[in-house]
Amino acid sequence: MFSGAQISLYPMTNDFVGVILGAIDALEPYRPTFRIETDDVSTLIVGPPEQLFPAMRDLLVRASTGGVHCVLAATVSRGCPGEPDDPICTPTGPTRHDKSLTERIAAARLHVADAPRTGLSVAAQFSLYPLGDGHHMDEIYGCIDFLKQSGVFDRSKNFCTKLRGDAGPVFATLSEAFLRFGAPEGHVALDLKVSANSPSAA
Amino acid sequence: MFSGAQISLYPMTNDFVGVILGAIDALEPYRPTFRIETDDVSTLIVGPPEQLFPAMRDLLVRASTGGVHCVLAATVSRGCPGEPDDPICTPTGPTRHDKSLTERIAAARLHVADAPRTGLSVAAQFSLYPLGDGHHMDEIYGCIDFLKQSGVFDRSKNFCTKLRGDAGPVFATLSEAFLRFGAPEGHVALDLKVSANSPSAA
Repeated sequence: MFSGAQISLYPMTNDFVGVILGAIDALEPYRPTFRIETDDVSTLIVGPPEQLFPAMRDLLVRASTGGVHCVLAATVSRGCPGEPDDPICTPTGPTRHDKSLTERIAAARLHVADAPRTGLSVAAQFSLYPLGDGHHMDEIYGCIDFLKQSGVFDRSKNFCTKLRGDAGPVFATLSEAFLRFGAPEGHVALDLKVSANSPSAA
Repeated sequence: MFSGAQISLYPMTNDFVGVILGAIDALEPYRPTFRIETDDVSTLIVGPPEQLFPAMRDLLVRASTGGVHCVLAATVSRGCPGEPDDPICTPTGPTRHDKSLTERIAAARLHVADAPRTGLSVAAQFSLYPLGDGHHMDEIYGCIDFLKQSGVFDRSKNFCTKLRGDAGPVFATLSEAFLRFGAPEGHVALDLKVSANSPSAA
């Protein structure tokens, strides 16, 4: 199953180039398992699905450390039928889809509760798109149940869901929503914006 | 049919607040027909589907006029089954879905060719998601045909398509792809980033 993300980092500062170049170091630990390609609009990361959200978290936390208002925007995808299967995308753990929905919600909550805190508060906004056949509505409703119990749920908005909290549990919640619900081998896309150090945050 | 977008504007400058506040004036002509709501992550616009992309174009062009590197990111949606029908979303023109695919591609190309030039060069990256039932694969392939003939097609990337050119025809192309293909009343979502004045643009 192909999995990866197109990531963009937007530091709202005159020194945006410096902030981006400095933050890219945060991806170093992932380089052995990721394929990484950059152009003028985004950076592609392709690799194990469990590592996508931790990599994005580390990138945003590094960029935001100096207090600059930064936004990370990403298009995340797994199981895209147009993409070749790639050994580097092999999951590093079980998908747990053999468990019941209730058990998976409990496991997802536990992962979020155990997520390391980063000290960075963020607001995240995302839309999850289960594409093609094989996704059952009870999986979607189960995912919504999980989100509301995640501890970082902020509110539903038109076209998207908003989370707020420490970047650790927020990215862990996004990762669980992306990995643990919907058809195990189905095509799932996730459109994401995460904002840090916003002067207009509530 | 409900139609709208969650829009964010990212000016890469210390004066990002000033640039955003200045650019919002560009939405004034749309206020009579749009519902507009803002929070710390995005601005919601709800209104006629034909006006969504022109409004985003005007916002980005205004923000980018001073040469600042700006990115506009948006989640655009029509026909979302979870949203109430709203009279302000009434299309202002025919959907042309009564025409054949070939005729619609020709009409879409004509609209792009006639689009006013803005003088601002941009790179756009987007993913189009036809959700739920009723979308036929020949509609998707027809849309891809149109994109390749649009005059602003740059290339296919993993998970998305990249356009490049003047903001006028680029936003016109996005609008045509969003409006003229897929099931007329079906749910279509579009995840978009448009970048202007990037120092790393090719």
